Amino acid sequence: MLHFSPEEFEGRKARLIARMAEDKLDALMLFAQESMYWLTGYDTFGFCFFQCLVVKSDGEMRLLTRSADLRQARNTSTLETVVVWRDRSGADPLIELRDMLDDMDLLGAKIGVEWATHGLTAANGKALEERLGSFASLRDASYLVSTLRSVKSPAEITHVREAARLADDAYEIARPLIKSGADEGEILAAMQSEILRQGGDYPANPFVIGSGPDALLCRYKSGRTRLKEDDQLTLEWAGVKAQYHAALIRTFILGSPSDRHLELHAAAVEALEAMEKVMRPGSTFGDVFDAYAGVMESHELVRHRLSACGYSLGARYAPTWMDTPMFYAGNPAEILPNMTLFGHVIIMDSDTGTAMTLGRTYLTTSGAPEPFSKLPLDLDLLG
Amino acid sequence: MLHFSPEEFEGRKARLIARMAEDKLDALMLFAQESMYWLTGYDTFGFCFFQCLVVKSDGEMRLLTRSADLRQARNTSTLETVVVWRDRSGADPLIELRDMLDDMDLLGAKIGVEWATHGLTAANGKALEERLGSFASLRDASYLVSTLRSVKSPAEITHVREAARLADDAYEIARPLIKSGADEGEILAAMQSEILRQGGDYPANPFVIGSGPDALLCRYKSGRTRLKEDDQLTLEWAGVKAQYHAALIRTFILGSPSDRHLELHAAAVEALEAMEKVMRPGSTFGDVFDAYAGVMESHELVRHRLSACGYSLGARYAPTWMDTPMFYAGNPAEILPNMTLFGHVIIMDSDTGTAMTLGRTYLTTSGAPEPFSKLPLDLDLLG
Repeated sequence: MLHFSPEEFEGRKARLIARMAEDKLDALMLFAQESMYWLTGYDTFGFCFFQCLVVKSDGEMRLLTRSADLRQARNTSTLETVVVWRDRSGADPLIELRDMLDDMDLLGAKIGVEWATHGLTAANGKALEERLGSFASLRDASYLVSTLRSVKSPAEITHVREAARLADDAYEIARPLIKSGADEGEILAAMQSEILRQGGDYPANPFVIGSGPDALLCRYKSGRTRLKEDDQLTLEWAGVKAQYHAALIRTFILGSPSDRHLELHAAAVEALEAMEKVMRPGSTFGDVFDAYAGVMESHELVRHRLSACGYSLGARYAPTWMDTPMFYAGNPAEILPNMTLFGHVIIMDSDTGTAMTLGRTYLTTSGAPEPFSKLPLDLDLLG
Repeated sequence: MLHFSPEEFEGRKARLIARMAEDKLDALMLFAQESMYWLTGYDTFGFCFFQCLVVKSDGEMRLLTRSADLRQARNTSTLETVVVWRDRSGADPLIELRDMLDDMDLLGAKIGVEWATHGLTAANGKALEERLGSFASLRDASYLVSTLRSVKSPAEITHVREAARLADDAYEIARPLIKSGADEGEILAAMQSEILRQGGDYPANPFVIGSGPDALLCRYKSGRTRLKEDDQLTLEWAGVKAQYHAALIRTFILGSPSDRHLELHAAAVEALEAMEKVMRPGSTFGDVFDAYAGVMESHELVRHRLSACGYSLGARYAPTWMDTPMFYAGNPAEILPNMTLFGHVIIMDSDTGTAMTLGRTYLTTSGAPEPFSKLPLDLDLLG
């Protein structure tokens, strides 16, 4: 099953080859699963083992992977040539990669490598340099495909819209369950189930759920608890369709919100609105961070804020849906139309034990960014 | 929330330090999240960014991570010292790691490194060698903690038993849904939901679900379909408790099984039973593979079988629950009591389009391995 037309895949390949020509690369070694998915549709978690997709400047593509992924590549991608390396004591897939490159006439060639990906561990990276360092001239091409991926096509945006609808649906399912005495596990199960039930995918990282003191966390952890009468609950979740993510983050208040909750929520809304004002062409990702940081500073929240306020979203694989570029200080990457960006404000005040989060996913345009979600930004108060 | 007693964590640290002394290591740089979880309880998907847990031979531990994981470490682990590096343009966390090591008096020390983990990308591994290669003497210690982790304590086995119960419960929930016309998404949602609802965790990789021709796949992929009147459905899933996994794999037959299904199922049972006979102390992981491969060969299934037949399971993080050691040809790792091992037979006959899988998780003992699951090995036929 392909989630895009053959023409779309052809167009992506043409854009990639044009970029390779600019960088005078004879070939690319792709290790990021999201690069392989974008270029060919190849959809797997098999990148947990060594595999490599080689793309030549003439458009030829060959995948080296394990036997468990041979049929996966055939059934999910446009790939025609798949070479299998076998597990055994002393197996050296890097030698098989070198043989494959040799067979593709790439001895002495200039080859770009995706080093900065979970699809290539440090151990495999070292082996690659040892085995191939004298075979070819290796260049860093870690962000070549991810830069192309950051601007979405109409077909991709359709998937993100559907992902966003699933995220809103998950919220609607969860909200009536969020009450004093409720089990966090029931809430999490209901949200994740709604997305899978409708044909959505697993998120590239677990949803974040935490109440009481753990509402100040922004990562998943094992171990569920029950909600108290006066409580705070932080949820970060994403709808996922065809592996495309649309994330949301909210802190819900059970019982009466404290003054600090109200104060932090007002600051969060102000910061998000300030970010929206600059989340448009002509600005950089660093500018969006500055807009956020400025509001945080004006409310004396510098100690309590995170040092990033969002990132690009797309078809990403585990261990995280966080894609590049990110909104952090000084990031010179430019905002372009048709990016799908998650803007979030996360304020964790450990002094008073108060959590506040607010965030949603936007489509950038030539003007103001368009939020995908229909949910309001109001503080979510529950009986 | 800690999932183990302080004494258990102290005992693990003592075992680790004893192993470090054998290898004459002054310190360890841990990058695998499963190592950090095992040693301290630290539970996060924050390993998607650069972080490092340094353990000194005198027992001192310091974590370097991002701001988003500062409270996560405090709320989930025994760690007392957490150093934060900040995202910004030109940030170099490796310099901050070097400063931290310097502060721990490790200049010129012999330091073991976990290179073979998704917690350290090739790009970060290169940066580590560049920044620290002349600061300290770096040794490969990729499998030091994972070897210790592969033998489970009574408290860990309790979690695996609970995980196995969740896996069986997911089966019981799913089975009545598996019928002609059913949506794969409904089945997947019901299984995953049951595990999360009961306080279980997300699996380290998505459950595998595929019917028709995609029943021959053994990885998750995006895109659900409906079951046909005569169909085959392959499911691979795991119950997960306190991040400990207990996996199962089955192929279900809707309508009448073909002769080939019956033939392959008989071979799968025979292979699994042959594996069980050698899955005990005195054998190696390679011996278990040989038992499997022998049965496959006797049934002329060499072309259709995978080149591995299982692996160790435990508390693993994304992108996969597959842990080391694995059952593949020639693996000299020894089977010891109190390992939790997933044995699977996966036969995919592309010639006839027939899928057959069978597998379950075992506790090794001083004698025969004990399956955790209560499910039978019979071919699962659904009207």
